[in-house]
Amino acid sequence: MRLLPHPSKEDIQLTEVLRALSDPVRLEIVIRLATLGEMTCSAAGDHLGVHKSTASHHYRALRQAGVIVSKQEGRLKFISLRRHDLDERFPGLLDSVLSASHVTT
Amino acid sequence: MRLLPHPSKEDIQLTEVLRALSDPVRLEIVIRLATLGEMTCSAAGDHLGVHKSTASHHYRALRQAGVIVSKQEGRLKFISLRRHDLDERFPGLLDSVLSASHVTT
Repeated sequence: MRLLPHPSKEDIQLTEVLRALSDPVRLEIVIRLATLGEMTCSAAGDHLGVHKSTASHHYRALRQAGVIVSKQEGRLKFISLRRHDLDERFPGLLDSVLSASHVTT
Repeated sequence: MRLLPHPSKEDIQLTEVLRALSDPVRLEIVIRLATLGEMTCSAAGDHLGVHKSTASHHYRALRQAGVIVSKQEGRLKFISLRRHDLDERFPGLLDSVLSASHVTT
């Protein structure tokens, strides 16, 4: 199992998290991970309606901002939400964003 | 008194709010407005360390995202946070961002 580079919890920056979440496709990825837990990039990319390379770009942006963990196992890449780290660093932030994402009217 | 164009509360979009708040200068403006209330653009721009035209660009981005209200009174332009609208539309979001902005370690 190979772990790609990630910022440590203490290095996660608020503005970078907000920027990572401010893209509709990335927000959709985060919502799916929050709902379904760890999954392969391939599964996470289903239903996004973007090319695989675009999805990869978004996974990288989320990883570099400290929002998700990516790990490579053989030919598969798995991603999951850094919910615990984010909740510890910025209490309530992720939950309020996830709640807000359900607002449609 | 002249009110500039603003999105209605129902048209405020989560991803646009997150993008507006993801810039360090804009976040600083929002923190000052949350702390000090309505102020002139000139007063809000103090201590930001950016050119007046850059500050104006940020005020416009915040206004268009639905984060602040701008109004012109004679030669003065006043800005204030749309706290009530944001709290109604996305409960807890602004507070969690403001709390997170105090995290420095």
